[in-house]
Amino acid sequence: MQEASIKAQSLSGFRDFLPEKMVVRQYVIDTLRQVFERHGFEPLETPALEYAETLEGKYGEDEHLLYRFAHGDRNVGLRYDLTVPLARVVGQHAAKLTFPFKRYQIQPVWRAERPQKGRYREFYQCDVDIVGSSSPLADAEVISINYEGLRDLGFSNYYTQLNSRKLLTAIGLYAGAGEQAAGIFRAIDKLPKIGAAGVLETMAKYGIADDVARRALDLALLSKGRRDQADDLKLLADLRQRFAAIPEGVAGVDELSAVVRILPHLLPDSAYAVDLTLARGLNYYTGAVFETVVVDGGVGSVTGGGRYDELVGMFSGRNLPTVGTSFGLERLIDIIEGRAGQQTRKTLSQVFVSVFNEASLPASLMLAGELRAAGLNVEVAYDYQKGDLGKQLKYAAARGIPLALILGPDEQAQDLVQLRTIAAEGGAKGEIAQQAVPRSEIAAALRARLNLRADP
Amino acid sequence: MQEASIKAQSLSGFRDFLPEKMVVRQYVIDTLRQVFERHGFEPLETPALEYAETLEGKYGEDEHLLYRFAHGDRNVGLRYDLTVPLARVVGQHAAKLTFPFKRYQIQPVWRAERPQKGRYREFYQCDVDIVGSSSPLADAEVISINYEGLRDLGFSNYYTQLNSRKLLTAIGLYAGAGEQAAGIFRAIDKLPKIGAAGVLETMAKYGIADDVARRALDLALLSKGRRDQADDLKLLADLRQRFAAIPEGVAGVDELSAVVRILPHLLPDSAYAVDLTLARGLNYYTGAVFETVVVDGGVGSVTGGGRYDELVGMFSGRNLPTVGTSFGLERLIDIIEGRAGQQTRKTLSQVFVSVFNEASLPASLMLAGELRAAGLNVEVAYDYQKGDLGKQLKYAAARGIPLALILGPDEQAQDLVQLRTIAAEGGAKGEIAQQAVPRSEIAAALRARLNLRADP
Repeated sequence: MQEASIKAQSLSGFRDFLPEKMVVRQYVIDTLRQVFERHGFEPLETPALEYAETLEGKYGEDEHLLYRFAHGDRNVGLRYDLTVPLARVVGQHAAKLTFPFKRYQIQPVWRAERPQKGRYREFYQCDVDIVGSSSPLADAEVISINYEGLRDLGFSNYYTQLNSRKLLTAIGLYAGAGEQAAGIFRAIDKLPKIGAAGVLETMAKYGIADDVARRALDLALLSKGRRDQADDLKLLADLRQRFAAIPEGVAGVDELSAVVRILPHLLPDSAYAVDLTLARGLNYYTGAVFETVVVDGGVGSVTGGGRYDELVGMFSGRNLPTVGTSFGLERLIDIIEGRAGQQTRKTLSQVFVSVFNEASLPASLMLAGELRAAGLNVEVAYDYQKGDLGKQLKYAAARGIPLALILGPDEQAQDLVQLRTIAAEGGAKGEIAQQAVPRSEIAAALRARLNLRADP
Repeated sequence: MQEASIKAQSLSGFRDFLPEKMVVRQYVIDTLRQVFERHGFEPLETPALEYAETLEGKYGEDEHLLYRFAHGDRNVGLRYDLTVPLARVVGQHAAKLTFPFKRYQIQPVWRAERPQKGRYREFYQCDVDIVGSSSPLADAEVISINYEGLRDLGFSNYYTQLNSRKLLTAIGLYAGAGEQAAGIFRAIDKLPKIGAAGVLETMAKYGIADDVARRALDLALLSKGRRDQADDLKLLADLRQRFAAIPEGVAGVDELSAVVRILPHLLPDSAYAVDLTLARGLNYYTGAVFETVVVDGGVGSVTGGGRYDELVGMFSGRNLPTVGTSFGLERLIDIIEGRAGQQTRKTLSQVFVSVFNEASLPASLMLAGELRAAGLNVEVAYDYQKGDLGKQLKYAAARGIPLALILGPDEQAQDLVQLRTIAAEGGAKGEIAQQAVPRSEIAAALRARLNLRADP
């Protein structure tokens, strides 16, 4: 069966996730799943392949990144995002769904990008959406999902910036931009990167008159210096007066105020802030937009979303009010992998049971079985036939398993188990220490060493 | 954005998994993951796309089922199974892996089959393998994984049939079949379906002489009537004498005996049986082969695997002894979905918190937050602005959420919550009952109603 003539290689831009990487990936995904499910969001999965015509015309200038091919007499394409499949599902299965439809979806997508550092052709997206509700509580709950997701992933210094597309439009109209409002958003969105002067320059490039540009920027900057929710509400009341003659502005203020009034019941006051300079790239938003920014380490935005009432109904022929957020899963995994003293481990295995010799195998297997029943992840040495304990422990150390047990004839006679620390948690090599523990107390001793609660 | 002119449809043979289906799928996958991780197996994921030449020539007459296409100047293909990617990973990343490499992999694969009931073009496989060990404990542990996996999925009446490819070869040689041994396996493998007479007829069709066929079948039937492990070992000792002049037969007996001697330390005696009529379809096995059969309801085989020492090294240019098993995940999910009184639910949401009116929203949100912190999956009504409690509860019933809470001004004044049962667990409509519970006891009351342990 050897075919070493064919080189073992994966495609450029595609990754194998070996166990060490998968441990972190599963930790992040499982943590977020729990947050979503705690709030009544439920899982959805859609096929990797869709009819090409389902995908075409949806991604603008990025359409050339679609993986498209003919199969039989059909043109098909690989999933490019999770939003179009959601819209397709809502159109196809509306009769089977209960609305508001609260779903999360965590699946890979494929884009024929030029591979480069941190950019892949296959990567996971993680979307959470509420389809069929225009309640401000829906917006607020999605914002709180961002907060709780990052909290449960161990982040501390972060907050959600919050704005409304309707307010951005109103700012443009109020400043006198008319049809050029879109250029204003795009320029203001770059404020953190290019500063106020850069924003004005960019607006000039878009052909926006200098006085209009200055008025728009001044308005957007009104949200700076926010201390607490009272400031948000004061700002919104101020805007309501200014925008009295702009229906979209009044609607934007009222919608966003309703959301802001709910937020303190769901997350700390310091965890969100109205920020009139936030625009978000995608052009399909119709109401609230938000991004969660991690302050420490210049990490920046790790989740983003908003309300987009006119997209998910695209296959249904009707508007379906929708609000959702997307976690930058690959980015979050990278950050958590890079954490100093990370809480994730190199391996999920917690205990290695060595086998002294062939005659001791039954005793070692019985011990392993008891520990598994006590909720521990346990490996038993396979190469016991040579009776080479050193080699067995070397395997455990190479795997990063933190604790090993030795149960030879002496220990069996005395009803003891030798408990050996073979690697510090996290995979770094620690002191090798050994301790004899009574057989009946070993599960409890291991759980204590692993900082697990007393019972599984 | 409405484009109702494009029909919302998925490709034939591809499925959307709506939340109700996903709940069962995740239950099965999470349960098996736990079993695998408890035994020190760790997750691996590989890309959906591989170089076409990695996949070509590996699937024999099924090669036309590969999804292959050109992308740029590359020929690529969608993952067809999880075994070739495992071999590719072992060849590509050997230096980063610790052997024995114990991995599990649960991912979709794609095959351009003609879609029909129960056969899909995209389906999940679930493989567990130990690469780099020829220890009989590796075989025994994989067999015990089959046992524990099904046990934790709630199966009771099932067992693992166990044989060895070397014994099958020896049976053929002993009976005088020479080069026709393969025809003998294939015929005997059909015994449960076509009976002894059918097997003899099939062998005749394969050109096997009648006396050879009868001798082979008689030998294979020696394993019938097994009561316990002692019978397995007696049978193997008997075969060792008969096969004394056939080296492959002696090796087969010795290998399988070593595995059988370990099994009682890992699983009940009734959960496995040597069965000389088991052959398994694939031709790459080199040692033990096994299948786990669910007896009740004529379900048949739900897992299968064996030792295949010459396959995983195909890209490495060397043999890598490997033993593994594959869970028929889609089949298991179908069976569990169809269970009467299934332990799975229609929704993961456990509690619906209604909102009496806009003024009560903060109280309802505080209650929901507390319950989430107590480990419950909680939804809050979005359409509270109309104050239509009946409509809110109708939504909860349609979703299959078993318990609902009402917290109006009267309840708030009396520090009570109304706890209403809106659907029996499992989604069937039950009696609607309502009970007032003190506010401070509500989390405990809900956990008790849901049969959860007292603390999360």
